[in-house]
Amino acid sequence: MSQTIAHLGPVGTYTEAAALICQAWLTQNDVSNQYQLKPYPSIALTLEAVARGEVPLAIVPVENSLQGGVTMTMDTLWRLDQLQIHAALVMPIQHALLSHATSLEQIKQVYSHPQALGQCPLWLAENLPQAELIPANSTTEGIQYLSNPTIAAISSQRAAQLYGETVVACPINDHQDNCTRFLLISREAAPGGCFTSLALSLKANQPGSLLQLLQAFADRGINLSRIESRPSKRSMGDYLFFLDMEGDTRDPLAQAALSDLKSNSEMLKVFGSYDLLPDEFVRSVL
Amino acid sequence: MSQTIAHLGPVGTYTEAAALICQAWLTQNDVSNQYQLKPYPSIALTLEAVARGEVPLAIVPVENSLQGGVTMTMDTLWRLDQLQIHAALVMPIQHALLSHATSLEQIKQVYSHPQALGQCPLWLAENLPQAELIPANSTTEGIQYLSNPTIAAISSQRAAQLYGETVVACPINDHQDNCTRFLLISREAAPGGCFTSLALSLKANQPGSLLQLLQAFADRGINLSRIESRPSKRSMGDYLFFLDMEGDTRDPLAQAALSDLKSNSEMLKVFGSYDLLPDEFVRSVL
Repeated sequence: MSQTIAHLGPVGTYTEAAALICQAWLTQNDVSNQYQLKPYPSIALTLEAVARGEVPLAIVPVENSLQGGVTMTMDTLWRLDQLQIHAALVMPIQHALLSHATSLEQIKQVYSHPQALGQCPLWLAENLPQAELIPANSTTEGIQYLSNPTIAAISSQRAAQLYGETVVACPINDHQDNCTRFLLISREAAPGGCFTSLALSLKANQPGSLLQLLQAFADRGINLSRIESRPSKRSMGDYLFFLDMEGDTRDPLAQAALSDLKSNSEMLKVFGSYDLLPDEFVRSVL
Repeated sequence: MSQTIAHLGPVGTYTEAAALICQAWLTQNDVSNQYQLKPYPSIALTLEAVARGEVPLAIVPVENSLQGGVTMTMDTLWRLDQLQIHAALVMPIQHALLSHATSLEQIKQVYSHPQALGQCPLWLAENLPQAELIPANSTTEGIQYLSNPTIAAISSQRAAQLYGETVVACPINDHQDNCTRFLLISREAAPGGCFTSLALSLKANQPGSLLQLLQAFADRGINLSRIESRPSKRSMGDYLFFLDMEGDTRDPLAQAALSDLKSNSEMLKVFGSYDLLPDEFVRSVL
């Protein structure tokens, strides 16, 4: 049978590379199915396609080690129902400067996705102080303008190969350990694993209400690997919290913590328990 | 004497409107000084100008009620030293669609800052399903293309007046209580007030380390009005926390909480205590 993995397009984006890794991993674990990729114009549309049952799987970026949470992913996961996490993977991100310029001084404009521009500010300030930075909808969008040698695009080496473009400099990200975590999403029940992700809104904004919530984990020695707040969109100062805990929802200690959490929160969404793809596997596909 | 307030430009942006409100407030409270505005091309550059002593004041957006924290502001406040918060203000945000189109069907491209595009997704999906959304560096950048009637820009009614452009629809933001909080920043010691902002990195990522930190406030009945994590940029899963507490650093209870916090954190930055400008004053200037 053929199964489709939805991802933010077009071809050559980092999310497509993550989708290729998932495709290889799924194929290896389930040889009875074939997996094909389908690009969508936004993260929200990929997740909505899964929620509607149009496609069984989607891969979305959730967090970058420099830029933080991907708010579109978090807000859409909260808004839609039935979505579960089937796996996570951490992909190293190395940005390349693509251009037909013969010297860096010649470059007047640099196109890229705001996240990518935000990951290279020091390199850009030092090496292209004269260039205007232009946000684009993806890391590959600027590639169409490269016939003009005063223009550059920040993208990946893989995109340069795919589109037959020249890499002027790589890596240009300010921190060498730049990486992005992706989630594989489905409507089917999560498989279980070492990590559990959830999101909740508090009953009341009062001293200690977040504390009470964290106490449910600390009392049981459960580590939270991430806590991130997002606006509830109801009023300024009213927040949701996204939490990643170490442990499986089927573990009795985790169940007790989640039960405490449920009684202390206004709304609780558990996105399920899942594992992280091994780093060696991720690197073997890239 | 003449004092300069740095802000993200150009003329017509929401940050410039916030700077005008601060200018009116400062002038009212200190008639011996005159205050003039100076636009900068990025939030980081406005804060760096204050840190270097080039200008005494800067106004920066820190949080939107729909889109959440302004990461550029938070990351730059953490990176630079000596910056203190002198006041905060909450400004209502109403987005307008500017275009020369004679019907919505005619519009093929919509330019705006990614934050503004992110505040109108439902309105855009319903009313301009055919249009491509193009991110820009500011809410006014797209105005230069409006002589082409297939192009629209999302900006403010004030920008439409300033640039002599036509408003096709307003408000177009999905939530009517859309607002942004701004901070007035200076190198001088903060004046004191009802709110204190701080940021810290944890000593160790272990069960209960964030809990211990929140306990310092809850034990003393101090409410945290905001907690937001940001990546430390050292490695995936290592975070900073930005906290807003209700209270003044000169209050003995707050001092005790901050002392606890200092011993439990690797690095603690206190941005000072300050007041929120009254809502009536903000509305009277707009």
